Amino acid sequence: MAQDLADLSLVEALGSIEAGTCQAGDIVESCLDRIEALEPRVRAWQHRPDRKAFMAGWRSRQASHGQSPLKGLLVGVKDIMDTTEFPTERGSSIYRGRMATADASCVALLRWAGAEFPGKTVTTEFAYFQPGQTTNPHRQTHTPGGSSSGSAAAVACGMVPVALGSQTAGSTIRPASYCGVVGFVPSHGLHALRGVMPLSPSFDTLGMLTRSVADAALIHRLLLDGRSDGRPDTCRPRRILLMSGEQFGEVSPSMTSAMETVADRLKEHEVEIVQTDRLACMDDAVATHERIMAFEAARTLASEYASRRSELGPQLLQLLEVGQAMGLEEYLHLLERRDGMIRTYAEAVAGFDGIAAPAAPDAAPRGTDFTGSAHMSRPWQLIGVPQIALPGLRDPNEMPLGVQLIGLTRQDERLLGLAAWFELKVFSVKA
Amino acid sequence: MAQDLADLSLVEALGSIEAGTCQAGDIVESCLDRIEALEPRVRAWQHRPDRKAFMAGWRSRQASHGQSPLKGLLVGVKDIMDTTEFPTERGSSIYRGRMATADASCVALLRWAGAEFPGKTVTTEFAYFQPGQTTNPHRQTHTPGGSSSGSAAAVACGMVPVALGSQTAGSTIRPASYCGVVGFVPSHGLHALRGVMPLSPSFDTLGMLTRSVADAALIHRLLLDGRSDGRPDTCRPRRILLMSGEQFGEVSPSMTSAMETVADRLKEHEVEIVQTDRLACMDDAVATHERIMAFEAARTLASEYASRRSELGPQLLQLLEVGQAMGLEEYLHLLERRDGMIRTYAEAVAGFDGIAAPAAPDAAPRGTDFTGSAHMSRPWQLIGVPQIALPGLRDPNEMPLGVQLIGLTRQDERLLGLAAWFELKVFSVKA
Repeated sequence: MAQDLADLSLVEALGSIEAGTCQAGDIVESCLDRIEALEPRVRAWQHRPDRKAFMAGWRSRQASHGQSPLKGLLVGVKDIMDTTEFPTERGSSIYRGRMATADASCVALLRWAGAEFPGKTVTTEFAYFQPGQTTNPHRQTHTPGGSSSGSAAAVACGMVPVALGSQTAGSTIRPASYCGVVGFVPSHGLHALRGVMPLSPSFDTLGMLTRSVADAALIHRLLLDGRSDGRPDTCRPRRILLMSGEQFGEVSPSMTSAMETVADRLKEHEVEIVQTDRLACMDDAVATHERIMAFEAARTLASEYASRRSELGPQLLQLLEVGQAMGLEEYLHLLERRDGMIRTYAEAVAGFDGIAAPAAPDAAPRGTDFTGSAHMSRPWQLIGVPQIALPGLRDPNEMPLGVQLIGLTRQDERLLGLAAWFELKVFSVKA
Repeated sequence: MAQDLADLSLVEALGSIEAGTCQAGDIVESCLDRIEALEPRVRAWQHRPDRKAFMAGWRSRQASHGQSPLKGLLVGVKDIMDTTEFPTERGSSIYRGRMATADASCVALLRWAGAEFPGKTVTTEFAYFQPGQTTNPHRQTHTPGGSSSGSAAAVACGMVPVALGSQTAGSTIRPASYCGVVGFVPSHGLHALRGVMPLSPSFDTLGMLTRSVADAALIHRLLLDGRSDGRPDTCRPRRILLMSGEQFGEVSPSMTSAMETVADRLKEHEVEIVQTDRLACMDDAVATHERIMAFEAARTLASEYASRRSELGPQLLQLLEVGQAMGLEEYLHLLERRDGMIRTYAEAVAGFDGIAAPAAPDAAPRGTDFTGSAHMSRPWQLIGVPQIALPGLRDPNEMPLGVQLIGLTRQDERLLGLAAWFELKVFSVKA
């Protein structure tokens, strides 16, 4: 597809509007054209307004857009996030047609900043594993990943420049990797999650799907304190820990080869790298994450488990049953283990500018009745550190392979600066 | 008022049902009688069902009650918690008549355990400071405290044996102290809060208002893993840190005298006590708590602030405006400070079985257009440790004075065991 206005990143689009080379309305129309053209195949949207009505509303708010940071540009919103103008169905028949009485915090903050919402993006059932209808924009036969399936797919094919997602296990990093976009998961606890359907509060985190690191940094900062004037300070690393991912699960030859490409390019830039298959402090991290998540999900979804059980998918039901059977002592023990990992992780990576690791075990697998494995994300989500998946590499079938960078808790700005350097120096290189 | 069935604690009531000395339905009717008699004065309830309809529903569920841990006994639910049969209005005209589409986790879990809900208890506006209509059951001219005003008042006068509340600053400990009931705030993060209106997620915690420590322990455990067979192991302390509270704000002569009574009784029981006015690690704890809360509340209530500002009370509006003006750097700095306090607190109290301190600066002040100061709670809520307010002492006007015990994170069972000992040995003594 030829480059058109819909392919501009958010920061590029805002720059063009600022410079007077194009108008926000034209960019929005270009995105809506893209949605109309590709939605029959990609199916990224759970709810979409009538185009004419949407644009009439958009024009009526145009005066206030002009003064706003986001100028009326489009943001996709995952359908576990409450919005006042669309239903919020959480990927479940239980909530078909459910209208929320207020915007989720993240939606309200972006609306306030001048974002417009052209609908809700498809989520898996309650942001767990049961897929929605979305396909991978790169190949219709392949999963887009989950649970932020629609958000990743919509951003990948230019329907919107950015979309909100969430991550409890691997729900932003994995679909970003499969769809070939940037997926940013900030430190746990930073962003307000009111109005976002929870699953496991110790892990639930807002996610951002974008086509550039600068876009992720802009949305992150806008949500936190309304600032829109900063860009991440590109930060050249001196020392990177490269993890194979094999500690957490099987990694494909293509992904292993992608990690070797990263290693080679870092060497070309004279970045010191330490390669390892294992971070001792993260042994059992996957299982610890899975068990805590099961315990918390069973309490969080107690209402649906008690009264709407027949409407829950089999994977979610199994998770809730595992969690129901767990006792308090095990839960407290797992939280202690997690706290220990948080401490030892900080010590283990103290000498590095960051960790680079596979964002998923492989490129998107063939099939759309599953969303792939979250194992490459669970360890980092367990300890609440910021993570960012970067696109740029491909497997022999031209399917995207994402590489993630992992940072230190609440050093999100530093991780974004590192990611900006990788985006420029490692992933912009044509393979 | 003569002792009748409505005055039984939850554990006493369950024991009587088990022993066959009374029936659950009679206890429920006695509580409903109490509500009818006292509600015109106490005004603890935001929503109440028609009594006949409620009892018809109760009878229809009676067969399943018999097998359940809570036997159909009554639990009050603070009106920031979603319930499917009553509106959830959050103390705000913005949400008048709002019906939730699912029970809050805590409501679903107690319903599952056989609780019945005779209505919603009055909350302040969004669980902040603007009072509702509730008066103190001990004196109609005095505040019941807030924000769990209705829950504390209802339990104090025998309308229900237990009620759910919440605490972000001092919203359970303070009303428990003012109304003369037990108020338990578990470790932050343990209980699922889905469907409970958030205010400041770093601090928002479920609270339990009861008339005995055993009742609080029972509800706490039932919510966590469904167990109902345990009672707190009464734990005699060897060494207690007695804090005057003056580090955090002014403390009345009555409360100071109450703390001296506690000291005397501990000495009688040969418990070693260390008395102090200050825990160095908690300097600035009140201000740190206030600023983090302002930042988070401004994001969490972004929707109301953006679009319903004229319907917000002046105190809440001021909190949101303070939070709006704060930048990310200050927020991150405050979180670092909080993390430092969490570490040093654990070291500072390592040699003690717990801390005893005033649960509020004084007995309930006269007036019902405010809810009193949360300063005695903010430091402990800042660091997420479990707290329990215990009744039993009175000021010269016969108004209740609560004393709180404070423990270590996730050592809730140990704190409850300590509280059970205090309840028996310190606070059951007639002054």
